[in-house]
Parts: sequence; structure tokens; C-alpha cells
Amino acid sequence: MSGRFERAQRIRFSHCDPAGIVFFPSYFVLFNGLVEDWVSDALGIPYAALIGERRIGLPTVSLQTGFRAISRMGDAVRLGLEVERLGLRSFTLALDCCGADGAQRVQAQQVIVTTDLDSHRAVEIPEDLRAAIERFRQRP
Amino acid sequence: MSGRFERAQRIRFSHCDPAGIVFFPSYFVLFNGLVEDWVSDALGIPYAALIGERRIGLPTVSLQTGFRAISRMGDAVRLGLEVERLGLRSFTLALDCCGADGAQRVQAQQVIVTTDLDSHRAVEIPEDLRAAIERFRQRP
Amino acid sequence: MSGRFERAQRIRFSHCDPAGIVFFPSYFVLFNGLVEDWVSDALGIPYAALIGERRIGLPTVSLQTGFRAISRMGDAVRLGLEVERLGLRSFTLALDCCGADGAQRVQAQQVIVTTDLDSHRAVEIPEDLRAAIERFRQRP
Amino acid sequence: MSGRFERAQRIRFSHCDPAGIVFFPSYFVLFNGLVEDWVSDALGIPYAALIGERRIGLPTVSLQTGFRAISRMGDAVRLGLEVERLGLRSFTLALDCCGADGAQRVQAQQVIVTTDLDSHRAVEIPEDLRAAIERFRQRP
Repeated sequence: MSGRFERAQRIRFSHCDPAGIVFFPSYFVLFNGLVEDWVSDALGIPYAALIGERRIGLPTVSLQTGFRAISRMGDAVRLGLEVERLGLRSFTLALDCCGADGAQRVQAQQVIVTTDLDSHRAVEIPEDLRAAIERFRQRP
Repeated sequence: MSGRFERAQRIRFSHCDPAGIVFFPSYFVLFNGLVEDWVSDALGIPYAALIGERRIGLPTVSLQTGFRAISRMGDAVRLGLEVERLGLRSFTLALDCCGADGAQRVQAQQVIVTTDLDSHRAVEIPEDLRAAIERFRQRP
Repeated sequence: MSGRFERAQRIRFSHCDPAGIVFFPSYFVLFNGLVEDWVSDALGIPYAALIGERRIGLPTVSLQTGFRAISRMGDAVRLGLEVERLGLRSFTLALDCCGADGAQRVQAQQVIVTTDLDSHRAVEIPEDLRAAIERFRQRP
Repeated sequence: MSGRFERAQRIRFSHCDPAGIVFFPSYFVLFNGLVEDWVSDALGIPYAALIGERRIGLPTVSLQTGFRAISRMGDAVRLGLEVERLGLRSFTLALDCCGADGAQRVQAQQVIVTTDLDSHRAVEIPEDLRAAIERFRQRP
């Protein structure tokens, strides 16, 4: 059970390939933007300061993705995020991209670890980030 | 004299380089998104259909850019567009990126030509696009 | 059992993020280039003509990835590809990125389906592509 | 008069847009890779260490580009670099992309400034970099 964070996204020319559909790595760039907005706007922890000043990294260690339907240039899609698991030094997000009809086009499960950006070693999730994720998960 | 089209943009992690500032090609990807939104939203001509169905290309033939100040991850910037010239088969845009203080960070002049996407040859600007650009230019 | 296709890759400034390490979607762009070179150079089927003239798409339908160690700007890595499965309308690739010491940094399993780029529906793997993949798999 | 640095480049699927031709910001990513290789391989100064350890930035302050002919997915092109000007804190490069027939498709003039990556202020070109550029310019 978790809160859900969503953002509308227009599929752009630059996301698409010579086949006229989204080039799949573009979804991961879009999902990364969604995670940024979730951290800054839903969790209330400025993402840029987390990375830049506090030197906490959020690298991905595992990523499972299913692509069920294509997206075309100009499509209005919705990107969504839920928290599946909150561990000591990592957490798992469920991410998706849905079309205007609500049908899921892409579904991803991403494990993110918190690291010290100087040593690139895993560190415990900072207390303010953990508390904010816990509050987010308890949203109806 | 011309109307002006603007859009707010947050500088994302994915726009930035190991120096922590916007990697300059990212500005051109952002400006391309601005041109898309201008065509679709300000001119009222669906950009995706222009490219995908009507097979009209909008390639860039000339680009002059000055980079005056850096942008950092997390910055809230404004992207702006004005029309400098409307020719028979091409038009010239003035694009800029300004910081929250209004100071111009990047200024570009871009000449875009309309082409037939099957032959990749220049064609006259389609009549509906020309009329919409003329109306846009006359905005106060 | 399968042949293996490898290519040396230098990690570039543009692959890296403000943390100074590869931004994970960049790996998928690099792997896509590896698949292109494998099709063109190892299988002997020009990739650009497959997509552009023959209108056969190679979209990804499933992707599992583990990120075990970071790559930094300037690193000399090796990208590798093997074929795990060859089906009727899809095939599964095992992709990896290894450091100069041979240690695996990223490992991905990617299911690619062959499609008709006009309808975006799955089609049987074209006979010449199938035969070339079979020959590749039998390499020592 | 200057030496010339060249590198072969295959135009990839990921460089191209829904029109099937190179998306113009991709040229700047390719040129940036060329500059990296020029610094590391022709000048003999490891680019990654210049940025990462010595904290010298090489941001672009001005860029003039003409796009004369399109490049398509699969094209074998050549990227070239010459030094037009060597100043105290900046230098000017002439960059181009030529087709297999030698015809110039893209020509760019890029002014790069050397900066301190902590303050992002211009600094004098480091002595080893300056000496290496001078030697490069004197090549036949």
C-alpha cells in the first residue's frame, strides 16, 4: 500500500526514433525526471541539493521493465510512481507510463540505493528522506 | 516586432554533466521542445501531425548561439521564443534561456527550413503555418 | 551456448551525470549501438536498411538489468552480447559491460521482438536474420 | 594554418529522429566526443583527469553552425577538428562532419573557455594544454 505520484508528459520529437516511436532509453530519462519531481515536490526534499550539496547519490542497482504498447510523438501520457519497499540502504519503486486511455504501456521496477557520492559506497537512507518516504507510503 | 512564447523549465539531473551544469547540447533539446510547444499550442498546428502525417520537416540550417552564464541542476529557468524573420521557405527564431532573475543565460538564433520529409528538399512554408506565424508576429 | 560479440567503448563526458559516473540510461543507448553493430557486422545484415527500407522494427519488450559497479568518465570498457534464445517472433540477448579488469559492471537481459514498422505488430523474424542468428549461435 | 584531427563515425539509430535523419543536437554530442578524443589522443592530456581531478572545465561560450546536408542512419561520416585561434583563456575550434564523398554536411565554429570548475570562472589555459595546442597547430 502506498501513495501514488503522477505527472503528465507529452511525448516529444526528441524522445522518438526513426521508427517514430519512443526510443526505449528515453523512458528511463523520463522516469528519472519523475523521481526527481517526487523527491523535490512530494517528499519535500530538494533533489538538486541532495545530490549537489549533501553528496547523496541515488544510483539504480536493479531494473526490471516490461514494454507493452508503443508511444508515439505527440502522445499525452501519464507517468506514475509508487513505493514498493523501503529498506535500510535501498528502496524499490514501481514506475509506469499510461496512455490517455489509462492503459499501461510501460511498467518498471527500480531498486535505488543511497550512496556517498565521494566513495560511491552505499549508506543508510538519510533520516529526513526515510521519514518522508514513510509518510508518502501512508497516504491514502 | 513579434509576439513572445515562453515556458518554465526545471533543469534536470539528465541535462547536466560531470561539471554539475547543463551540458550545452541539452539546451538545443530543450529549445526543440519549446518550438514543438509553440507550433502546437501557440500556432495551433499539431506538431506531431505536421511531421508524422503531413510529412513536413522542420530541420535547422543555421544556428548561432551565445552562452553567457551557466545553469545548474535544479534551477528554474524560462525558455523564450520570438520570430525574427518569415521567409518563403524558411523562418528565423530568436530563442533564449533566462534565469529566475530574468538575466539571459543562453541566446540562440535558429534558421529553420520547411522540407518534404520524403525528398528532404525545401518546400514553401505551408499556408496554415505561414498564416499562424504571421498572426503570432502581430501579437502585442 | 552462443558466439559472443564484443566492442571496446570509451566512457565519454556525455554519458556521465553530475555524480561523474555513467547515467544509467546511457548504458541502454550504448547497448543499442552494440546491437546495431552486431546485426550489421557480425550477422552481415545492414541494420539501417532493415529499419529504413525493409521496415522491420526491433523494439524491446522486456529488459532486466543489474548494475553491480559504476563506470567513470574516461574508463575503457568492453560491451558484450550473446544470444540466449531464438524464438519465432522474438529473441533474447544477454548484454554486459565489463571494466578493463574483466569484472562485470552491468548485466542485462533484453527480449527483442521483430515488428512491421507500419502496423507496429509482431512479425516472424525474417528468414535471413534468423539464419544469421543461428549461425552466430553456433560459433565456438 | 593548423593540424587536423579526424575520426570516423557511424550514424546510429539513437542519433536519428522520426524523420530518419540526425537530430541536430546529436551533432554537438558527437563533436564533444571528438574534442575529448583530440585532447586525450592528439594533445596527450587525459580529458577525464583534466575535468575530474584537475577540475578544469571546457565550457562553450559561442557556437556558430551551418547544416548543409542531412545524414541518415547508417551513414559512415568523418568528424574533423582544426584550431582557428588560441587565446589567453579561450580557443576557437573549427569542426565539421563530412560524408563518405568528402562533402561537408555540417560546419561549426566553437569558442571554448577554460574555467575553474569550483568557481565556474574563466582561468588561463593551463600551460601543458597551451603547449600541446601550439604543437598541434604547427603540424603540417
